[in-house]
Amino acid sequence: MSDGPVTYSGAGVDRAGVQDALASLRSRIRETFNAHVVGDIGHFGGLFHLTGHRDPVLVSSIDGVGTKVLLAREAHRLAGVGRDAIVHGVNDIAVLGAAPLFALDYLAATHLEPTEVAALVDGMAAACREEGVVLLGGETAQMPGVYTETGADVVACIVGVVDRAAISDGSSIRRGDVVIGLASDGLQTNGFTLVRAIMRRRGWTLDTTLPELGVPLADALLVPHRSYRRGLRALSAASWLRGAAHITGGGLPGNLVRILPASCRARIDTTAWPAPKIFEVLQAAGHVGREEMFSTFNMGVGLAAVVPADRAGLALDICRSNGAAGWIIGEVSSGERGVELQ
Amino acid sequence: MSDGPVTYSGAGVDRAGVQDALASLRSRIRETFNAHVVGDIGHFGGLFHLTGHRDPVLVSSIDGVGTKVLLAREAHRLAGVGRDAIVHGVNDIAVLGAAPLFALDYLAATHLEPTEVAALVDGMAAACREEGVVLLGGETAQMPGVYTETGADVVACIVGVVDRAAISDGSSIRRGDVVIGLASDGLQTNGFTLVRAIMRRRGWTLDTTLPELGVPLADALLVPHRSYRRGLRALSAASWLRGAAHITGGGLPGNLVRILPASCRARIDTTAWPAPKIFEVLQAAGHVGREEMFSTFNMGVGLAAVVPADRAGLALDICRSNGAAGWIIGEVSSGERGVELQ
Repeated sequence: MSDGPVTYSGAGVDRAGVQDALASLRSRIRETFNAHVVGDIGHFGGLFHLTGHRDPVLVSSIDGVGTKVLLAREAHRLAGVGRDAIVHGVNDIAVLGAAPLFALDYLAATHLEPTEVAALVDGMAAACREEGVVLLGGETAQMPGVYTETGADVVACIVGVVDRAAISDGSSIRRGDVVIGLASDGLQTNGFTLVRAIMRRRGWTLDTTLPELGVPLADALLVPHRSYRRGLRALSAASWLRGAAHITGGGLPGNLVRILPASCRARIDTTAWPAPKIFEVLQAAGHVGREEMFSTFNMGVGLAAVVPADRAGLALDICRSNGAAGWIIGEVSSGERGVELQ
Repeated sequence: MSDGPVTYSGAGVDRAGVQDALASLRSRIRETFNAHVVGDIGHFGGLFHLTGHRDPVLVSSIDGVGTKVLLAREAHRLAGVGRDAIVHGVNDIAVLGAAPLFALDYLAATHLEPTEVAALVDGMAAACREEGVVLLGGETAQMPGVYTETGADVVACIVGVVDRAAISDGSSIRRGDVVIGLASDGLQTNGFTLVRAIMRRRGWTLDTTLPELGVPLADALLVPHRSYRRGLRALSAASWLRGAAHITGGGLPGNLVRILPASCRARIDTTAWPAPKIFEVLQAAGHVGREEMFSTFNMGVGLAAVVPADRAGLALDICRSNGAAGWIIGEVSSGERGVELQ
């Protein structure tokens, strides 16, 4: 047993603390600030002055990017998962009709290079600016023994607001309504543990270019999350949004069911949209069953919205003109509460 | 290469989803609900109706429990770190004068037993009830390849509110003010990477009972975080709180400095309070320098508050009657902005 002093080899590092190497990140974070922010970076809590709401309901969500971070780190594309963390949360609260106000992030690993933290914060800050979100606070933790050498976690908590009367929670969904699906750009942040298992089995790397895809797997797999905020806001403004489900872990069946009232059953026609090629490739390569594909991946539908049948066409037009193409993918009938894939 | 179907061996698991094994946790979570909560568990975002504030500033903080989780998991005392995650956040926003409204948690590991998730949620829910916090949302993620077998992360984001005029950010601190220190119960959640290095070096386990401590190390190390919310609220109500610092990573010098205005210097008399025995034991066992001890551990002071000199005695009385004993530990003078340990 050596008897020299024990070296301090890791700790939670508060981003608000003095870290010269990361000082430039502060300006990136400040670029997300607006007139609601009170004070500057460095307080024990982030301060957001809430104004302009008569009957505000705060809506919040927390989530991480899952094991996608392992591939993103290997591919040196961490900015994308930074973006994912923010956009995922924005979508989660947008389905309830909420506009995002601010986000707090939590980055953790055994060790993160300053360039990696910078890429993550860059991606988060860029997404925040696009989505009108203040990056109000964050923590970067270095935790030896908790994370694998290549592991890291990228988590964001989003807080938004909706006036109480404008909450869309699915309770007004009724028989005869139509389900529209808005296109995803790929896997978003779900299914990566299965993807990694398939890659190992097939001996694929991120550089592998499959003829069916025509691009390296890194390009096919690491597309960042798409935001549905503007499309949903337009549907809400038109009072056509009966409910919306963000298609994340659990897929279409696992998420659409969450907004269905009792005795409402959604039938989804899985031939109604063209699933991105990547899902077909993964299914074949892994001999994955159809049901597992649909409960693991979004299969090309990143968001499902329920609208009155006579507004479905216009709703799709509105979404398309707000950056989210989609299709009519199903309908709501009476029956046992659940989602049926046809 | 086997060619059977690839098994789906892990994924983000949304706690709001159907998980029979964890269904009982919902009742624990619901016990934290109050009249502000809109709807029930299961929405994509948690809904909190904000009422009763004229000029609300939302104050929020996110943090994890660091590597303390490794020892807590080994000792089967995860409820304590669940509590830590909540109380840590409550303290972070209480120093700004804010009352907590709600929390969202994020639990992640390669694998968590249902009993482990239950213990964590139990601890969080108990702390939430005591602190008047709604446990509004959460995510439990199983992420193979990201976490070590024994690793886990326990993160909470807290959102609270303070009326704009009542923010205590240290800006009113002036020369002649007094620094009072409120007692911690031990390490809180900081310094555990150093502790684990010392334990490895000395061959100590959580069951080791050192004569100087008289209890197993598990008892000495895993005491949960103490809440300073009530003490701070009483100081705020009396208009005596010029500023307060939560003593976390970075210790007294690293955190007290965060609330000091320019040209204000705090001198801390480190003999003014009795540091808990555990710090002396760790320092001797690890041959850790005094400066490193004070920048790694709270050294017995979990919170530093700055009050007018002529109110210091009364301030201590008020804190004591609100569950937080303390001492006068220093004073503010003119000089280069910083904290000086004497």
